[in-house]
Amino acid sequence: MALIDMNCDMGEGFGVYTLGDDAEMLRTVTSANIACGFHAGDPLVMHRTLSEAKANGVQAGAHPGFLDLWGFGRRPIQGERPADIEKIVLYQVGALMALASDAGHTVRHVKTHGALGNIAAEDRDLAEAVARAIRTIDRNLIFVVMPGQETERAGEKFGLPLVREIYADRAYADNGNLVSRRLAGAVIHDAEVASERVIRMIEDRAITCLSGVRLPTRIDSVCVHGDTPGAVAMAQRLKARLAAAGVTLAPMAEVISA
Amino acid sequence: MALIDMNCDMGEGFGVYTLGDDAEMLRTVTSANIACGFHAGDPLVMHRTLSEAKANGVQAGAHPGFLDLWGFGRRPIQGERPADIEKIVLYQVGALMALASDAGHTVRHVKTHGALGNIAAEDRDLAEAVARAIRTIDRNLIFVVMPGQETERAGEKFGLPLVREIYADRAYADNGNLVSRRLAGAVIHDAEVASERVIRMIEDRAITCLSGVRLPTRIDSVCVHGDTPGAVAMAQRLKARLAAAGVTLAPMAEVISA
Amino acid sequence: MALIDMNCDMGEGFGVYTLGDDAEMLRTVTSANIACGFHAGDPLVMHRTLSEAKANGVQAGAHPGFLDLWGFGRRPIQGERPADIEKIVLYQVGALMALASDAGHTVRHVKTHGALGNIAAEDRDLAEAVARAIRTIDRNLIFVVMPGQETERAGEKFGLPLVREIYADRAYADNGNLVSRRLAGAVIHDAEVASERVIRMIEDRAITCLSGVRLPTRIDSVCVHGDTPGAVAMAQRLKARLAAAGVTLAPMAEVISA
Amino acid sequence: MALIDMNCDMGEGFGVYTLGDDAEMLRTVTSANIACGFHAGDPLVMHRTLSEAKANGVQAGAHPGFLDLWGFGRRPIQGERPADIEKIVLYQVGALMALASDAGHTVRHVKTHGALGNIAAEDRDLAEAVARAIRTIDRNLIFVVMPGQETERAGEKFGLPLVREIYADRAYADNGNLVSRRLAGAVIHDAEVASERVIRMIEDRAITCLSGVRLPTRIDSVCVHGDTPGAVAMAQRLKARLAAAGVTLAPMAEVISA
Repeated sequence: MALIDMNCDMGEGFGVYTLGDDAEMLRTVTSANIACGFHAGDPLVMHRTLSEAKANGVQAGAHPGFLDLWGFGRRPIQGERPADIEKIVLYQVGALMALASDAGHTVRHVKTHGALGNIAAEDRDLAEAVARAIRTIDRNLIFVVMPGQETERAGEKFGLPLVREIYADRAYADNGNLVSRRLAGAVIHDAEVASERVIRMIEDRAITCLSGVRLPTRIDSVCVHGDTPGAVAMAQRLKARLAAAGVTLAPMAEVISA
Repeated sequence: MALIDMNCDMGEGFGVYTLGDDAEMLRTVTSANIACGFHAGDPLVMHRTLSEAKANGVQAGAHPGFLDLWGFGRRPIQGERPADIEKIVLYQVGALMALASDAGHTVRHVKTHGALGNIAAEDRDLAEAVARAIRTIDRNLIFVVMPGQETERAGEKFGLPLVREIYADRAYADNGNLVSRRLAGAVIHDAEVASERVIRMIEDRAITCLSGVRLPTRIDSVCVHGDTPGAVAMAQRLKARLAAAGVTLAPMAEVISA
Repeated sequence: MALIDMNCDMGEGFGVYTLGDDAEMLRTVTSANIACGFHAGDPLVMHRTLSEAKANGVQAGAHPGFLDLWGFGRRPIQGERPADIEKIVLYQVGALMALASDAGHTVRHVKTHGALGNIAAEDRDLAEAVARAIRTIDRNLIFVVMPGQETERAGEKFGLPLVREIYADRAYADNGNLVSRRLAGAVIHDAEVASERVIRMIEDRAITCLSGVRLPTRIDSVCVHGDTPGAVAMAQRLKARLAAAGVTLAPMAEVISA
Repeated sequence: MALIDMNCDMGEGFGVYTLGDDAEMLRTVTSANIACGFHAGDPLVMHRTLSEAKANGVQAGAHPGFLDLWGFGRRPIQGERPADIEKIVLYQVGALMALASDAGHTVRHVKTHGALGNIAAEDRDLAEAVARAIRTIDRNLIFVVMPGQETERAGEKFGLPLVREIYADRAYADNGNLVSRRLAGAVIHDAEVASERVIRMIEDRAITCLSGVRLPTRIDSVCVHGDTPGAVAMAQRLKARLAAAGVTLAPMAEVISA
């Protein structure tokens, strides 16, 4: 029986601001990537999200990004040195872990956010900086990566437990990267289409690219978005479709240790 | 033979900005209170300060403050709830600890900064929030407190190892608090006068207030400032005078376990 | 025929974050107090809000606050010197005016936000600092004040055009201040009750306090909130009730020049 | 008789932090580019710098940058849309102008900072966005540009008064751009060498590139740096050498109207 995780970014509010419907998503997904105060999130939001993840049996992970609240961590900031990236990852993951110890929950994985993730996927030095930071903190921390990218190779090189994820609502280029949002067909808005695609990729043990090219890979987790209109509905529909297809949801740590 | 620690706030730069002569102070003091990115400091400054403290045999501690870079954490921000303060302390200490694990050093103590420290000294709920945060992270973390204040009582209540500090260059009111900087005589600028005073208090095992009132207390550490003109010279003079008086300097963890 | 302005805080988003339903409120009120980037708002949000206010025939004003995005400018920051407050008001109003010149709109009034407004209402030096900043920029800029408070006196002293406002949904203490939100009855949630109250105060030309005490005053504007659940509905109901009572809405600059 | 301006970035402190010796530079240069709170500077620093520039007879200009205090505006932030850049320039210049009206000084020019300037020099859309923002505020505001770059062309297109500047301490590539700091010979540290070079370029009415290539251009101003060791000494030496060579210093507005 197939076992898969469903992960979602959460805790992306700041002060009076909120983003997405975390309460509803926490009833749907099995792993939460929690913003750590650089691109979004603050100590109060982080603590609350950890507590609610715990209450819902959802695995908690760190979601570090660039120090860029205004740009929500989505703006590529060039010229960051790997040694510096390593430190901003250490800082953010450490902060979340301390809050987790108070919330009675455990940080089990790390997934980079936005532009940091995009750059790391293609830049070996940055990917290794992220992997090194994770290993320094705890070599049992799971590194969530995109199959075939530099982050996967860095995680393997540093001996980290890896979770290979696919995106439910994004089209793939032939190199395994996401098709740029600016191109037609890059984002899938229809829940049924997205669900079909996810189930096919899981059954096929391969990513299906927009061109039809097939990239074989282990798939441990499906990423759903929480901050778009219809996000909750798509996640719930995907969950129902997966159940109907005989795929069982479980937190990513269970998926890779099964 | 008397044993005492000398502590100093450090790592209070941010980006291109620097504050104080950390390199020189690290050759003089035995414990460093490292800013954690809220009132000052950033992941790079923190890591560098940890590495240099390690290289100089100086004990590292966290120096959490209000999220107020513009005001350098010195502005009293009213209305902060204890539960929130607890989380901002957890966040900052956790971040520093993760960086310390990479820098090969260990965070051994926590000392609150500026307005957060001033308010906690007089507000029981806030003092207990800080103590609770420290205990949650590690009950062996030392809490640096001012004798006779709410922070000392909170530390005792929560069973934390305590370091009781005196200020080398500040006059005391009869309640054991510092005299406001706005009042005449509040700050001692003469290194000899400051040194005489510190040695007398150590020998006398009591704080001598401006009025002449004597407040008996255990004294584990002397705080020197690093960001004022003449700071390094005063610290060096005090160190020499302590040595001449037969007082040996040691990191605060050694002082309280001696 | 009575003429009155209805004002609302707007443009309080930041980056990806939004707050309140500005589009709907702009169809309802006659004046918008636009956040200037310190407690909320950013150059893009400010420009968009100015453009939309212009398109809706809504008067634009500056809504400066403390530099405290995390606390949304609601946390009292003590120890701010009046000379410093003057500069943070100058900065914010000047920034908005430059954006207004591009958006084809005009900044006609200034209303302080949150804790800055609360403190200025009771602290003469701060109230005068705000008034002085406004006069320096343009002595024809309207200063929005609460009747009977230090801001009203400061505005009179510096010869600024004044708009005296009442709050639709807040109870008053006998000194003309708002009753603290922490006390029972401080906030009025029922649109009919709030509307009745506003109409009575306008007809009576006096603020009616919670105790029944009556404070005679000129009333030029009614403040409605935009960031609470039911905000739009309350504003729309109040508008309808005012129309039924023969009170005509107009931007505050028209109200005081009528 | 040759007339030239000497300009320097100033007011680049923030809160407790200072950068460079503004007091000394204000006694040396004729124009100050004042940071506006995005990459450095705050309302208090801005006001103080304006007042001191006024007292020293130094022309004041705005020095807008990216919203990136941590990176001091030096990090290239990709993906900024020209329409957004226009608004961050409007915001910053407007803020400085309001403070100038209180400090009794006048903002006469605009010079972009760091990465914003570097990108605008090569990106026509961004260069035009900056020029458009300046023209919207006041078509008499001087735009400080590098000869031969997109900023010069944008300034000409929008009909702004232009000041063409050369750098005293930086080597030029054949396209008139600065040689990257990472390459050998990019930065000139010797005050005599720098002075010789500046005088030769002024007399020759051309930029001399590292390769020996000569790019004819009008030269109105020489930029000196204020935040490097030896900055003040180099500026003073250059000033003395210019005087000896019969070149008179004057604020840039005078240079281009002479």
